[in-house]
Order: sequence, then C-alpha cells, then structure tokens
Amino acid sequence: MTMSSLSSNPYKGTRDWYPEDKRVQNYIFKVWRETAESFGYEEYGAPLLEPIEVYAAKSGQELVNEQTYVFTDRGERTVAIRPEMTPTISRMVAARRQEMAYPARLYSIANFMRYERPQRGREREFWQLNLDLFGVESVLADAEIITYGAQMLKRFGAKNSMFVIKINNRKVIDVMMREYLGLDEVGAQLMVKLFDRKSKISTEEFRDQAIAIFGQEAAPAGLKKISELLLTKDIESMPSELANHGAFGELRQLFVELKKTKVTNAVFDITLMRGLDYYTGTVFEFFDTDPENNRSLFGGGRYDGLVGLFGAEPISAVGMAPGLTTTELFLKSHDLLPDMTSTTEAYVITLSEELRDQASKLANDLRAEGVRVELDITGRKLDKQLKTALKKKIPFLVFIGHDEVEKEVYTFKDTTSETEHHYSFARMVGAIKDRRRNGEDDLDTLFG
Amino acid sequence: MTMSSLSSNPYKGTRDWYPEDKRVQNYIFKVWRETAESFGYEEYGAPLLEPIEVYAAKSGQELVNEQTYVFTDRGERTVAIRPEMTPTISRMVAARRQEMAYPARLYSIANFMRYERPQRGREREFWQLNLDLFGVESVLADAEIITYGAQMLKRFGAKNSMFVIKINNRKVIDVMMREYLGLDEVGAQLMVKLFDRKSKISTEEFRDQAIAIFGQEAAPAGLKKISELLLTKDIESMPSELANHGAFGELRQLFVELKKTKVTNAVFDITLMRGLDYYTGTVFEFFDTDPENNRSLFGGGRYDGLVGLFGAEPISAVGMAPGLTTTELFLKSHDLLPDMTSTTEAYVITLSEELRDQASKLANDLRAEGVRVELDITGRKLDKQLKTALKKKIPFLVFIGHDEVEKEVYTFKDTTSETEHHYSFARMVGAIKDRRRNGEDDLDTLFG
Repeated sequence: MTMSSLSSNPYKGTRDWYPEDKRVQNYIFKVWRETAESFGYEEYGAPLLEPIEVYAAKSGQELVNEQTYVFTDRGERTVAIRPEMTPTISRMVAARRQEMAYPARLYSIANFMRYERPQRGREREFWQLNLDLFGVESVLADAEIITYGAQMLKRFGAKNSMFVIKINNRKVIDVMMREYLGLDEVGAQLMVKLFDRKSKISTEEFRDQAIAIFGQEAAPAGLKKISELLLTKDIESMPSELANHGAFGELRQLFVELKKTKVTNAVFDITLMRGLDYYTGTVFEFFDTDPENNRSLFGGGRYDGLVGLFGAEPISAVGMAPGLTTTELFLKSHDLLPDMTSTTEAYVITLSEELRDQASKLANDLRAEGVRVELDITGRKLDKQLKTALKKKIPFLVFIGHDEVEKEVYTFKDTTSETEHHYSFARMVGAIKDRRRNGEDDLDTLFG
Repeated sequence: MTMSSLSSNPYKGTRDWYPEDKRVQNYIFKVWRETAESFGYEEYGAPLLEPIEVYAAKSGQELVNEQTYVFTDRGERTVAIRPEMTPTISRMVAARRQEMAYPARLYSIANFMRYERPQRGREREFWQLNLDLFGVESVLADAEIITYGAQMLKRFGAKNSMFVIKINNRKVIDVMMREYLGLDEVGAQLMVKLFDRKSKISTEEFRDQAIAIFGQEAAPAGLKKISELLLTKDIESMPSELANHGAFGELRQLFVELKKTKVTNAVFDITLMRGLDYYTGTVFEFFDTDPENNRSLFGGGRYDGLVGLFGAEPISAVGMAPGLTTTELFLKSHDLLPDMTSTTEAYVITLSEELRDQASKLANDLRAEGVRVELDITGRKLDKQLKTALKKKIPFLVFIGHDEVEKEVYTFKDTTSETEHHYSFARMVGAIKDRRRNGEDDLDTLFG
C-alpha cells in the first residue's frame, strides 16, 4: 500500500470542475433550463449506459466504431457509455408510446463520452442540453426548436449579429444528390460526407474527391453543377429545376414561420449536411459570426424514423443539442459571461474562541432566514479567517466580537463595495436579500 | 439494417427518468442543494471515469474487485466508472492543495455505477449527494456534517422520531479490537467486517465466525466480552477499562457539540463499523426508525489520510453521501413527498387554426413575463388539446378563440381547483405568479 505517487490529474480528456468553474457551468445550465421550461419542455433523465445496438442502428459508423467508449460488462453484454442522447430518448418514447401525452416536449442536461482528439472546445467527457419535440409532423415544430435556440442565445445576452443559423433539408439534399447531380445511392452517401467535410479540407481535395465520386466521364458536368450550387445564396437563386421541386416546400414554409417568431438571422445553406444518419427532414446549425471564432455552436434536425426502430409505431421528432464547452467559448469570446461570486452569501468570523457558540447561533439564525452562511470553526486569527472569505469571493462578512454579542449590533462588511456597517440582525438580512434580488433583476433584464 | 426488434428497455440496473419521476428527483436534489448552500458548501463537478488505482488504494477489496465497472480504454489504460466520489474529491483537493481556501466546504450531486444484485433501494446506476469538509481537524467539523444530515431530513419535513443517527469512532474500534478483545491486526480486520455484516446474518453465524477469528482457546473470553459490548447503550455503560480510554475523547466531545445544534436523536453504537477502508475517526450512519423500513439511509465519517495518497500534504477531511433512492423510499414511507404538477404553468389551446399566429403571440407575451408556457401547435380539436394538457398535469389552461382575441379577455381555467375565469392578460399573469409564490411559501414553511 505505498501509493504515495498516485496522480492527481483528471483522466485524459475529462475535467475537474472546481467551484469557480462549476458556477459557470451552472449559469449555462440555468439559462438552458429556464428557456426550455419557458417553452413548456419538461426535464427527463436517462441511463449512462446503453447496449451498443442502440447506436449501431442509425448513429453513423464513425461514431460507433471510432468514438464510442464501449466495453463488455460482467454479464457479457456489449455496452456503451452514451455518446449522444437522441437514440436514448427515442427508445424511452418508444417504451411509453401509448401512455405519453403528445406532443411531448422533453429536455435533459447530461454528460456524454466520445474518444476525440483533445482540442479547444472538444473534450472526451462533455455536457449537452438535449431538447426534443415528439409528435408534430409539420415544420411548426422545426420552427419552434430553432426559435428556442435563438431565444436561448439571446437570454445569454447575444445579439442577432453574433450568430447565424444555417438551414437545409434532407429531402432537398436527396433531390440534389440523386436527381440533380445524378448520383446513385452509394455515390450520394459519399457526396454527403464530402460536403460535410468541405470546410475542413482544401478546394483541391474537395475537387479530387468529387471527381472520384462522379467518375471521369460524369465529373465535368457534375462539378459545374456543384459550383453553381455553391454560389446560391437563397432558395430562389437556385437552378430552377431544383428550386421548383416539391422538396423545397418545407424549407420555404420554415422560413415564413421563423420570420413570425422574429428569427431573422436564418439562411438557407445547400452545403449543410449534418453527419448523423438518422435525420429525415430539416437540418440546421448555429454558427458564431465572430471571424476569430467562426465555429459551429450546435445543431439539430428532424429524425422521424428513430422511435420506430424500437418496435413502436413511428412518431415524428425534431430536436437539437447545444454543448456546454462551445457555449462557454461563445460567451467568453463575446464577453457575455457575468462576474460570479460564491453561492455563499455571508462568512461569519469569530473574534474570540469564547464566542464560538454565539457565532454558531447567529449563523443558524441567518440560515433560518434563508441566507447562505459559512461559519469559520477553525479558531484561527482574524486575518486568516478574513483571507479565507476573500479567497472564496463571499460577498458579505459578519464579525462576532464581545461588543457585537452584547449590543446585538454586528460589524458587517460588503467585500464588493468595500464598505463597513454596524447593522442589526434584521438590517443584515435585508442587505443580503437586496443583493440577491438585484442579481435576479440583472438576469431578468437579460431575458426581457 | 433490419433493427425493428431493438429493445426499448433500459440497460439492466438503470432507470429511465420520465418527467414525472424526474420531478421527484429534482425536488430531492433541490433540498440537498439548498441545505448544503445554506451551510456555505459550494458545488463542484468531477469526471465520470478515474484510473482504477484511485480506488484500489483505499476503497476496499469488495468494491474494487466485485462491484466496479472497470474496462480498458483505447489507450490501454484501466479505468473505472466512478463507484463513489470520496477518492475523486480527495484527488481534486490534492491537485490544488496550495491554491485552495481552507476550510473548503464542497458538495456535488452526481451519478455512480456499481454491480449490485438488483433489489429495492439498490440500482446499478445511482445518484448521490457528496458533502465534504476539508481542513478542520476538530470534531466541530464532524458535528457540522452530522448536523447537515439532520437539517436536510428536517427540510424534507422529517421529525426527529423518524430517524436515528448511530455514531462510532475508528480509534475506539481499534482500541476495542486490539486492546480490549486482544486481536492481532488481521484478526481485528476480520472482526470489523464481521460486525459490519452483523445485521445481515444470524446470531449463530455471527458466533461461529467470531470463534473462528478468536481461535478455540481465546474464544470463550472473547465472546463474553463481545456480549457485554453489545449490551451497552451509551459510552458510560461500557466496561470501564474501555470507557476511560483516551480514544473516547472525540466521541464525548462530538455528542456535546451535537446537543448544541439540537441534534438529539444521535446515539453511540459500538457495532457500527462502516465498510470503507479510508475512515480514520468518527463514523456515523442515519437509520430510518420506521419498523417496516428499518434501513440505513446514509452515512459518512472522517478520512484524514486520503488526500495525502495523491502526493500532497495530508489534510483532514470529513464527509457524508446520502443516496437518491434511499431518500426517496424514506420520503415515501413517511408520506413526505409533496404533490407535484408539471414545471409548465400554462397550456395555450387554440380554438381555430386561423388564430394560430395570435395564440403564438400570446404564448410569447406570457413567456416575456416569465411564465412557463406550452403552446399547442397541432391544430387538433379542442378535446384532444385539452386531454394533452390534463395528462401532463399543467395547472392552467388558456383558450384562444375569436372572442378572446377581439376583447383581449381570455378564458382561463385552473385545473387544480377546476374553476374557470375570464381574465385580462395582466390578471392571468397575476394568478399564475400567485400560485408559484404559494408553492415557494409551502417549501419555506417546511424549511422554517
């Protein structure tokens, strides 16, 4: 048992969330949750593990074969730590297909794991909001989910100019690949993957791979058509044989609905594919417009076929999944993260060991009023107690000395304004609650 | 890809948390969190996986070898899904040993996995609060943690008569095993495990195994001493050669402190051991007193040696870990779970498809006032929309018809009191917010 050299580092690709980091995480979770509930979404929870088959069906080869934490359990079952939530919530809806009330609006905030090359914004254990609407076939549901995404970013204080929403539709993609570009099923699948990687590869590489998919003979005409497509900025500027196709009906209606909910920064993007195999209609992705940080924030889409895989009647579904890390990077790069102090509101400092019981009583009395109070029970000198409170960023200090106990008037210090007062118990409670109310008002202003 | 027979059941030993179950979970988390923060504890988060060595050091053989979900990752590292939090938070404290402010009061609410024989109150994936206090050597810290546990149960509405807190001390256990019963180190360890299983085995089995540990010669005297010990009800009724031992000092002081914080249902129990290897001082366990449900609720203790294993200076630590499932069973058996409706406060029902945009505007206006609103966008008949809202247990219904839109007076139904009103927008908001405030007051009364 000579274990003195155990590493104190977290496991590769995971993070330790100390209170100062957890506060930021909790702030993001809070805004996600409040926005979701304001639209009538109800929270659910789900198992950490699923049998691998749940993902093998529709999540795509790369995710299952290369990125999933998969292992054999003690009962010889092959299980995965969930790499995403969509198959799980589809399974859950299938299991209660008959009993549930439709439309079902559901959200969860949970952790996931994937093997990823560690890089900025990508960790192996990551947190996501999942927001899904089951049982509405019309694009009104797609519009609601996208509107949620825009509202959520606005609650964080984002302006329309800070993000853009790119939208496409799997039915349109299918028509484009099969009818317009003339590809067969395998060719179409390869071309979708190629479009998906377009921003990550060079123009030459894109061209070479496109030629390989078309074949030498069909390549010149195919490439010409792709160049034309890449130049289109909206549906109406598409080649007319495409723009007039019925598959564009949903897209057109979606943009009409988004205008009604004042989502004005949504654009049609024919190159947007979304990698996962289960999408069947609308797909969309939110992007940061900051040129230094021009990354995808999050995305989602319609996946009408997934619930049916679990032996239930199919049910239409549309959803999205914003991630914690990209949201945090977005908020930081646009300077939208508020200053955060400790959740603890007051630190009780005892000036003499004899007064320990009186200090403990005062702390309990404050707690009974709903105040969040830490009591120093170390018996250390004043300066050490003070240092602890300041290091923890606790906004108020209460000092208990003989004078204070006798007169029931307390030395009360506001560490943010650096002012000192001599307050009765009731005034202290009042000052602490005023600060809490002001904090909530600040948030309300953001949300207004 | 013929996957039509995918099972819709959750993975063995895990649970799907549908909104009605998640509400109960969230209520318990809320009370845990509010009580923790009222004592100045700050929330942290931690990785889902840890290298197996983290547990191998001190968590005990059974937990590591038989109960842990362990696997080899793609980088050939042997990792475990966390079966408990104490080693992780000790690692985290060790990693920031120099920078942290002490005393550090830390809590987390997280999920864990262990292979357990599935039974009532035991699932393979389970949720726990972990509450730990680092950097206070005195039993004042032990008293604070135990007081937290009692306060937390009281915030749920529990009376003192509903639970009892059994307390012991590892130093006392050591003196009892080594000096009083005369066992060697191996014998003492075996006897601790035997005491730990005492309530799960028959008196004969306990006797037989005790004899095996003592050996035939020493057994008669040893058994006599154990019978005497089992009859003691408090420290003072212990055999005097034990009661006067210095090891009892901490225990005596702890009971004095608990009296000050009005924890009157704590008792000394010489048979309480706590299985984990890392405890060094006070150990305690909360028990349900309901004879039909006479189970351990949760426990904890002092573990001063754990942080030092991670290459840092040792630091004193004491903590506890209440579980979700046992807490839920306790609340149910004592009828302490409040009725819970949906988090959604209002359901907007559209009486005619033509009014869809007006209904959508009203829903958004309510949201801007902070109300949680679900809008029915299905275009279904009135009775179907109504059925959905009632099934979801949403407290208020707002009906949008031509009359309502014209007069700006809305048909507003309270589903809990089954009353119907004709309200202006402002009165609706008022009624919804009144209900919310009353709900919070109910909770405040519990907490008072």
